[in-house]
Amino acid sequence: MSEYQELKPKESLQETLQQVIDLLHRHKLVEELVHKQDMPRHELVESLVHKQNLVELQSKLDKLHPADVAHILEALPLQDRLLVWDLVKAERDGEILLEVSDAVRETLIAEMDSEELLAAAESLDTDEIADLAPDLPHDVIQELLESMDAQNRVRLQSALSYSEDSVGALMDYDMITIRDDISLEVVLRYLRRLGQLPSHTDKLFVVDRNDVLKGVLPLKRLLVHDPEASVAAVMAGDPVIFHPGDDAGDAAQAFERYDLITAPVVDEHHKLVGRLTVDAVLDFIREESDSDLLSMAGLKEEEDLFATVWKSVQNRWTWLAVNLVTAFIASRVIGLFEDSIEKIVALAALMPIVAGIGGNSGNQTTTMIVRALALGQVHLGNMRKLFLKEIGVSLLNGLVWGSMLGLIAWMLYHNVKLGLVMTGAMTLNLLLAAIMGVMIPLVMHKFGRDPAVGSSVMITAVTDSGGFFIFLGLATLFLV
Amino acid sequence: MSEYQELKPKESLQETLQQVIDLLHRHKLVEELVHKQDMPRHELVESLVHKQNLVELQSKLDKLHPADVAHILEALPLQDRLLVWDLVKAERDGEILLEVSDAVRETLIAEMDSEELLAAAESLDTDEIADLAPDLPHDVIQELLESMDAQNRVRLQSALSYSEDSVGALMDYDMITIRDDISLEVVLRYLRRLGQLPSHTDKLFVVDRNDVLKGVLPLKRLLVHDPEASVAAVMAGDPVIFHPGDDAGDAAQAFERYDLITAPVVDEHHKLVGRLTVDAVLDFIREESDSDLLSMAGLKEEEDLFATVWKSVQNRWTWLAVNLVTAFIASRVIGLFEDSIEKIVALAALMPIVAGIGGNSGNQTTTMIVRALALGQVHLGNMRKLFLKEIGVSLLNGLVWGSMLGLIAWMLYHNVKLGLVMTGAMTLNLLLAAIMGVMIPLVMHKFGRDPAVGSSVMITAVTDSGGFFIFLGLATLFLV
Repeated sequence: MSEYQELKPKESLQETLQQVIDLLHRHKLVEELVHKQDMPRHELVESLVHKQNLVELQSKLDKLHPADVAHILEALPLQDRLLVWDLVKAERDGEILLEVSDAVRETLIAEMDSEELLAAAESLDTDEIADLAPDLPHDVIQELLESMDAQNRVRLQSALSYSEDSVGALMDYDMITIRDDISLEVVLRYLRRLGQLPSHTDKLFVVDRNDVLKGVLPLKRLLVHDPEASVAAVMAGDPVIFHPGDDAGDAAQAFERYDLITAPVVDEHHKLVGRLTVDAVLDFIREESDSDLLSMAGLKEEEDLFATVWKSVQNRWTWLAVNLVTAFIASRVIGLFEDSIEKIVALAALMPIVAGIGGNSGNQTTTMIVRALALGQVHLGNMRKLFLKEIGVSLLNGLVWGSMLGLIAWMLYHNVKLGLVMTGAMTLNLLLAAIMGVMIPLVMHKFGRDPAVGSSVMITAVTDSGGFFIFLGLATLFLV
Repeated sequence: MSEYQELKPKESLQETLQQVIDLLHRHKLVEELVHKQDMPRHELVESLVHKQNLVELQSKLDKLHPADVAHILEALPLQDRLLVWDLVKAERDGEILLEVSDAVRETLIAEMDSEELLAAAESLDTDEIADLAPDLPHDVIQELLESMDAQNRVRLQSALSYSEDSVGALMDYDMITIRDDISLEVVLRYLRRLGQLPSHTDKLFVVDRNDVLKGVLPLKRLLVHDPEASVAAVMAGDPVIFHPGDDAGDAAQAFERYDLITAPVVDEHHKLVGRLTVDAVLDFIREESDSDLLSMAGLKEEEDLFATVWKSVQNRWTWLAVNLVTAFIASRVIGLFEDSIEKIVALAALMPIVAGIGGNSGNQTTTMIVRALALGQVHLGNMRKLFLKEIGVSLLNGLVWGSMLGLIAWMLYHNVKLGLVMTGAMTLNLLLAAIMGVMIPLVMHKFGRDPAVGSSVMITAVTDSGGFFIFLGLATLFLV
């Protein structure tokens, strides 16, 4: 399909969405009207107005880019979404399924029978089928495998075997290969004979007869060099390469660092097995940063905006449960000091401040360390400096904010010692936040866990329980 | 510079970093040794070993891609960083300054005099100078402007006038323009005469004599079509275009949606003024998602890992201060109920649970809405459904978790009514979290504020103070 069908910048996409909603609305009004007048349903289906709305909607959808149809499907409540999905031409099902979010894709696939799914999948490339595969029923995948030629079958099977976060899962097979002993003139003629180049083709891959990668020929070089020159003379012999097992996040960083558009993927024998493109990398980066944001907020995965209450609850329960446990522990810490609180009830009002500021400060530290770890900037040589800096920051914060709060506590409750305990507890809890804020992500990283997931919950748990314990403990020692 | 100098995947980049650190370490050992023996400093500088280390380090740096040098500079403490920076060849200063993070760039620029800065900037393209400009001293910019030709001066001045988040700030000027009445053959000859194409060139821009954009000619089409054909016959007449004032985030979404590599930027008269490339978009997306993460954690901006304590504190105080105020308000809410707590001290231990779970649940809701707003998926037609869903989720959560906690409270304190108050308070606070979790980002969006910044702090403030008020209020009504 051409890259240049009718494309929509964001505002006009919003307009289109509104038009779709209006058409759906008109469609429903007709249905309701007919329903009230007790017109039999088959007459309704025949009714002119009714048909007209749907035809108009359908022709609108046909003109849209698959990504824009996907956007509209995601923004519609389930019932409307399925109505629109029915109107989409069957041959476009595949490419639209690729574009929608995982959660919305589930709702669409749930409405399709095996035959429709098979037809949709068959319109796609092998690497695209691999992207859909986790959501397809087992029998559909079996049938797909059987209907494929040998090369594609092997490719699909190996694509399915790569882990989700590997280069193998992101790569495609749309590479054009050439030999190095021909002239650029021959290459130009070969390309003209092909008639069309795969999307994102910015370079050709130079291989020997065993498919071993010898270099790449950027189109830019092909275009500016003398057609008489040989490929070997013009190609770049030392391109950035990836292996299917490489971490996709590392590959994404390399794409950013070296401003790549496509790059070859080779196996352990340096044999060309696929191609990584910047659009796959872009999608990956977006998904990664989304999932970081979601997990920081305690959501398991991207949620369909119009998921059922039950689905949403499942997406959110894991983290709520974890938080409930940590909140309960903090509550038991307070329980230890109930006698002290009974004597000085001001403690109950002041203790959440100590815990809260500790949590905030700890999260700041943790976020910095998590980022530095992801960028590979933390190593043995600079860890001591990092610790010292964070401890310095927390001491300064503790003394400044702690003193201020101590003053306020003193003025509110006319108790100098209470003020001093407040200052001391703030300083100690910020110190605890700094130390644990550095250590938690480092330890998680050390044990091969992703420090972006869960660090925030853990540091908050530590500074809550720790903050209550420090403040109430100091108060019990010095005030009661 | 060639795209294919020595490139480093992540592991070998880590190795290089380690080698640099080792060399620096050896260098320092020599310095210390000399210092202990009271050798005069000028002899030290002359000393062979000392020189040898630095020469080795320098030759290592010379071979690295600018992005990799930037990575190493970011991972080094200030003193080492400046030592390495001194060793970098002056003609590479400009491109490396472009690659480092804002915070690290500041530390490097602070060490350079006007002359060095001027030399570094003069090695860059106009759009790149515009990226550096905010960090450059005023006199350097003045001198740069004076040394430029008229076209570049106008470009730099207009680039500086665009807001940071606009297409104008991201675009470059590396476009190749052609006329539509020539044949592809002529285009091919023209490109060969150019000898080199700008990076990321995937299409040529077709303009008339007044620079008005008539279409684009993708290299892919240029390569596969008959050289006799005219540009007009082969070009794509309706490409995705952007305007300098367009929001960069919207442009990034369009790049993702339509898998673009480059796109033309035109002014209000459809005159070609620049080009947007996927690598600029990629950098923008990374920066955006980083700044979302940082602001969720309460950091103002990206922090140099080895910033001074004072610099770090400044980066963190804004949010700590805001949190302090909200924590203080919550504390005063508790203060209202000190009489009740004095009578039933268990309230003090249980109240943080109600507030904490409310905050978590509210943050989940807010995060979803913020995302949906960014994607343009929320509109008048589906807002009611969104509210209903979130209220449903919160009621279900409230009843399930609330009942469980009610039971636990009953068992711990042998007080049925306390358990019931706990259940009721949990349900009401989760309801509050759901309603405010939807409303806060919507209202911020309505008033043109970025809902990603501050929503989390606000919802937590509401559920903290609200949770304390609801729980202690119910307890005062029914228990005291």
